[in-house]
Amino acid sequence: MTDGGAPTARILSIGTEILFGETVDTNAAHLAGELARLGLELREVRQLPDDRARIAEAFRDALAAVEVVIATGGLGPTHDDVTREGLADALGEELTPDSALVERQLQRFGGRDRMPESNLRQALRIPSAQPVENPIGSAPGWWAEGGGGVAVLMPGVPSEMRRMWAEQVVPRLEARFALAPLRTRTVKTFGIGESAVVDLVGDLLAAPGPQVEAGIYARDDGVHLRFSTRGDPAALREPTTRALALLGDNVYGTDADTLPAVALRSLATASCATLASVESGTDGALLTILSGHAPVAGEARFIGGLLVLDGGPQQPPPAADAVLRVRLSMPGSLGRSRVGVALEAASHGFAEREVRIHGSGPQRLRRAAFAALDAVRRVLPLPGSG
Amino acid sequence: MTDGGAPTARILSIGTEILFGETVDTNAAHLAGELARLGLELREVRQLPDDRARIAEAFRDALAAVEVVIATGGLGPTHDDVTREGLADALGEELTPDSALVERQLQRFGGRDRMPESNLRQALRIPSAQPVENPIGSAPGWWAEGGGGVAVLMPGVPSEMRRMWAEQVVPRLEARFALAPLRTRTVKTFGIGESAVVDLVGDLLAAPGPQVEAGIYARDDGVHLRFSTRGDPAALREPTTRALALLGDNVYGTDADTLPAVALRSLATASCATLASVESGTDGALLTILSGHAPVAGEARFIGGLLVLDGGPQQPPPAADAVLRVRLSMPGSLGRSRVGVALEAASHGFAEREVRIHGSGPQRLRRAAFAALDAVRRVLPLPGSG
Repeated sequence: MTDGGAPTARILSIGTEILFGETVDTNAAHLAGELARLGLELREVRQLPDDRARIAEAFRDALAAVEVVIATGGLGPTHDDVTREGLADALGEELTPDSALVERQLQRFGGRDRMPESNLRQALRIPSAQPVENPIGSAPGWWAEGGGGVAVLMPGVPSEMRRMWAEQVVPRLEARFALAPLRTRTVKTFGIGESAVVDLVGDLLAAPGPQVEAGIYARDDGVHLRFSTRGDPAALREPTTRALALLGDNVYGTDADTLPAVALRSLATASCATLASVESGTDGALLTILSGHAPVAGEARFIGGLLVLDGGPQQPPPAADAVLRVRLSMPGSLGRSRVGVALEAASHGFAEREVRIHGSGPQRLRRAAFAALDAVRRVLPLPGSG
Repeated sequence: MTDGGAPTARILSIGTEILFGETVDTNAAHLAGELARLGLELREVRQLPDDRARIAEAFRDALAAVEVVIATGGLGPTHDDVTREGLADALGEELTPDSALVERQLQRFGGRDRMPESNLRQALRIPSAQPVENPIGSAPGWWAEGGGGVAVLMPGVPSEMRRMWAEQVVPRLEARFALAPLRTRTVKTFGIGESAVVDLVGDLLAAPGPQVEAGIYARDDGVHLRFSTRGDPAALREPTTRALALLGDNVYGTDADTLPAVALRSLATASCATLASVESGTDGALLTILSGHAPVAGEARFIGGLLVLDGGPQQPPPAADAVLRVRLSMPGSLGRSRVGVALEAASHGFAEREVRIHGSGPQRLRRAAFAALDAVRRVLPLPGSG
């Protein structure tokens, strides 16, 4: 996945709450995906408590082992937050107030009277570190060069970290390491298992072309085939075209296409301007997915959904041009469940399908909803339509 | 949180897919919570790729640093799966087939003809390791003593890992380290912020009593106060009683109580046998939570819900004794949102409330739904009821 020359990286996730299992470290997973996309080779992730000596040791180790150390957490105002101190110790430097950061904190809080004294800790800096702006939180980040590598410190709050990462850290990493961006094409299927996809595409997975990597991913919204390159993006054209041909109507879209978008687009093409949903057995997974989809021009509009309990009173759905119904049965043997899907459009007709899905728990519910959305593009146009 | 004598632990999460950000390492978070509950002090988590040399080094480091090393992943049948080899290298031991494990694999696959040759790799063992049974998968675990500590190897598939952990590993750890179990009492509030809870309970958080620890946790379903002890559970009685008195009607329940259970119980007490929901702005969060709740005797039964888009066509809700309506407005400044809640019961009356919540994204939607459920217990009995 990475060539020998890729810069190496380690992530340090800092926070005692992570080691108590009270917080799931989603930051590391997000950053891991980002590093792969950027072309850095992530060699290890370490989760550490808010302990100054151990943080210092972890920075020393990491800066000796890899080129880029990405740390999140421990930049808050309280005395528990000692990531700044840990890096200072690792580099043998002193923390002193940075006048621009002090000014920033005073402005942020509207004056010294209103700012808790502890927030001044967030204005400390070591000589090797440049501040990294945090537009939505009180903790600035750091970009530090020393100890044989680059150390990036970001807040642990996911929204603050992600924004700082995307807006400030990624451009600096790209410039510092002259990174070639990863270009990808994704082919998305539904209604076919991972091994069946492998059979259909044959040697395309093992040999997708020069400088191209291929990967296969089983997701709730189907099996995705992804081609990527750090070279000329034109090299992605041939494997993508071949995959589309080999997978035929199992494919519902590519790249940013999603099943709700594809279903709502198919409905608009079939002259249905609005959609309502009725579901049972799914805990509302279909209406959750549909209402979470951001509407786009050229799509039918989702106007509401009804969840009814199996055997409960019947109820008319919200009035719409088309109504999508899904009913998920209890799981059978080997984790297989049957999904009944029906689409009716007042003036156009009616179609029904039965689909089988695998899985358990929330995944099973979401897969049933996605199966219903996939059925929409498959049954349209309805038999009664012109 | 742990006394000086707690056995120390490190988790190794092994799998190249974790370092590509393709898999979120939920195993580590689950095990971290479990270790805290058992009374082991988790000092670090490391995520490593499927690389034999690096796994060996990680085991050597970990066995020198802590008493218990818990590893997940890399026990599959393919040549990428090298966790067994890594531990063997760390301990300087040879892998040889274990006759009982070979027999187990043959039985599992129904004979040598049907078993892929690669699955024999899962029957290998080093002299220091005892096999740990995996009743639902092909990879047995290992319990190994050597290198100054205990190393536990479990599969990376979460369902297999969790079952092996609970049924086989926990009893061995309890016996090996004579662990005292952690007893807890939780007091659950809604509609009050974390700092307000801190103000109300005063010194109870800092000094909850001898051998008792106190913790405060802000969750989507409210702020929880938790008291825990490894000593006599009777020591939890006093701080729990004091917290209940100090927090008054902010408390909706204790321990396993949940907001849907409390709301449905309040409705049953008010002679409502069935509940339906109507929501807007919440992407179906209320009906998702209500339909995900497992019904219990003594509670009203949730029979269905309706999601309507703000400004969309009005629609009657499923017919029920009581209807709970929630409407979430767009977020205002500082991430505050207003939640309008109304409860009507055909024969009993009607009540309305407006609640403010904080947060963004999916958390905001869930908090609005929980605010509606919390309002149910607060407004009952309705003004018109006897």
